[in-house]
Amino acid sequence: MSSKPNVVVEKSTWKSIEAAHARIAPRIHRTPVLRSATLDAMCGAELFFKCENLQKTGSFKIRGATNAIFSLTNSEAARGIVTPSSGNHGAAVACAAGWRGVPAWIVMPKNAPAVKCRAVEAYGGKITFCEPWISARNEAAARIQAETGAVLIHPYDDDRIIAGQATAAKELLEEIEALDALLTPVSGGGLLSGSALSAKHIRPEIRVYGCEPAKADDAYQSLHTGTLHSMESSDTIADGLRASLAARTFAILQKHLSGIFLVSEEEIISAMALIWERLKVITEPSSAIVLAPLLKREVIDSISSEAPRARRLRIGIILSGGNVDLRALPFH
Amino acid sequence: MSSKPNVVVEKSTWKSIEAAHARIAPRIHRTPVLRSATLDAMCGAELFFKCENLQKTGSFKIRGATNAIFSLTNSEAARGIVTPSSGNHGAAVACAAGWRGVPAWIVMPKNAPAVKCRAVEAYGGKITFCEPWISARNEAAARIQAETGAVLIHPYDDDRIIAGQATAAKELLEEIEALDALLTPVSGGGLLSGSALSAKHIRPEIRVYGCEPAKADDAYQSLHTGTLHSMESSDTIADGLRASLAARTFAILQKHLSGIFLVSEEEIISAMALIWERLKVITEPSSAIVLAPLLKREVIDSISSEAPRARRLRIGIILSGGNVDLRALPFH
Repeated sequence: MSSKPNVVVEKSTWKSIEAAHARIAPRIHRTPVLRSATLDAMCGAELFFKCENLQKTGSFKIRGATNAIFSLTNSEAARGIVTPSSGNHGAAVACAAGWRGVPAWIVMPKNAPAVKCRAVEAYGGKITFCEPWISARNEAAARIQAETGAVLIHPYDDDRIIAGQATAAKELLEEIEALDALLTPVSGGGLLSGSALSAKHIRPEIRVYGCEPAKADDAYQSLHTGTLHSMESSDTIADGLRASLAARTFAILQKHLSGIFLVSEEEIISAMALIWERLKVITEPSSAIVLAPLLKREVIDSISSEAPRARRLRIGIILSGGNVDLRALPFH
Repeated sequence: MSSKPNVVVEKSTWKSIEAAHARIAPRIHRTPVLRSATLDAMCGAELFFKCENLQKTGSFKIRGATNAIFSLTNSEAARGIVTPSSGNHGAAVACAAGWRGVPAWIVMPKNAPAVKCRAVEAYGGKITFCEPWISARNEAAARIQAETGAVLIHPYDDDRIIAGQATAAKELLEEIEALDALLTPVSGGGLLSGSALSAKHIRPEIRVYGCEPAKADDAYQSLHTGTLHSMESSDTIADGLRASLAARTFAILQKHLSGIFLVSEEEIISAMALIWERLKVITEPSSAIVLAPLLKREVIDSISSEAPRARRLRIGIILSGGNVDLRALPFH
């Protein structure tokens, strides 16, 4: 999968990303890009961390949610929003719905972290809990939609969501020149596919990679077999990475992705501790996962095997979220 | 102390701060200014957090250390540097000495956090431990100076250090307009006096406040009595705030400071948890202390009692450092 030709991003797709950025920029943070000389030395590359963990609601999810909700007509929005979410998307929808002044119903799995449930409630979202598998979530969301007439906004199988999530990579690539590669986590693929669209439009030669828990490797399986796999349930510590690709995100990743790196649970925790200690930013396991394949030199080895270079590689990383329970940290 | 007239900052002092900034800017991070709508609402003000916890070596101390060490002549620098430090200044001196290619001897109290000792060693500093009181540190530093011929750089009673620390507030006030007040922690007073010089030069009407642990209230006592108090030892959780003012910092604060807020140990821990949860940045107790008087509305009450206003106050905050042991956090 790694010697991916440069497929052109359609003009209409890029226009929708630009429109999303203009729509959401007044409402969200322009997040900083942080660096660490120590992490650079440990990974043998120049790393640029786009800190969406410092974004409003604590994750990039506010980008897609704001774009989707502010794309609705007044009469659509007035019906309210319903969405299934493992946590961060739910908080983002509740927050953006609040900005628009409309109600939000969030369907969350029973095993979502308490801190993420509290965040949804703090933004005024109404939570319905369900069993921790995808079909149960979808059924509960459909039921609420039928009962309330609310508009269903899928967490990632939605062009408005993907265009919104794409704006983080757009900001990163517009700020940092000459990146050789871009890494994000992958779950349902909204962030990764949006990032791929922005990155490949701005810099067609860039390589875009996803990072996924080995314990929830459905995106890896889907891309390697060419058939959409899904995983009903996983208990990976990366609680935000338990979803599976959908039609839209799978199609985009098949076109633009250079590969997926699988990461063990222990490697996720080690990467998380390093980011906290060195970058000094709170990063949730689902987000810290991206550092692991860099520490193992898997990313550099993959790129260098195709095109050896004289200079150190420049690698962009999207730190996707920072919502963790401070009273239940995995460090030991 | 709060209705302080606007005392002019001497032109030569401002020139030395500008020179310091030019000297250190290529070597340090331009740290971001973060915001949180939730913290704004909780404090009833617009807060602008200058994140020196995201600075190289994890604290603002690299600013003063770099300015001092790169101000030395080649023959002075070649003798090496010795300094007493509770931790962050030691790491900064070790790092900056490394950049200059000269040795650094750091005298640290026995009760310094292990994570800060490891950082000094990681930057190549040579540690000498001493009893945890100021006189023991000064004696050990003087002994090493005599034995090695190294140049002693005091952590704060030094104009080059103060000018370096002043550059954080300079960046903040050059980026954020119309601040009504600026808050920093106070220990030896290097950051607070430097910040006062920059802030009062750029915006003479600004109020500058220090925040100090009630358990180590020597700066408060000094400024209220007009006589320099010192504290031999304190076990406050704010391990970076156990030092006492010196002649230079005391004189500057007597001229420019509007007041000091005292903070309890429990308030420090609560403020720290809030910053981690809301700003998503790692902040050490000595740094998180600044949020506590804002949460209690003490800052707003102090300013409003003198000059009531129609709009919300705009308050700058310097988050001074982020070096904590992740395996021994005070959250409960």
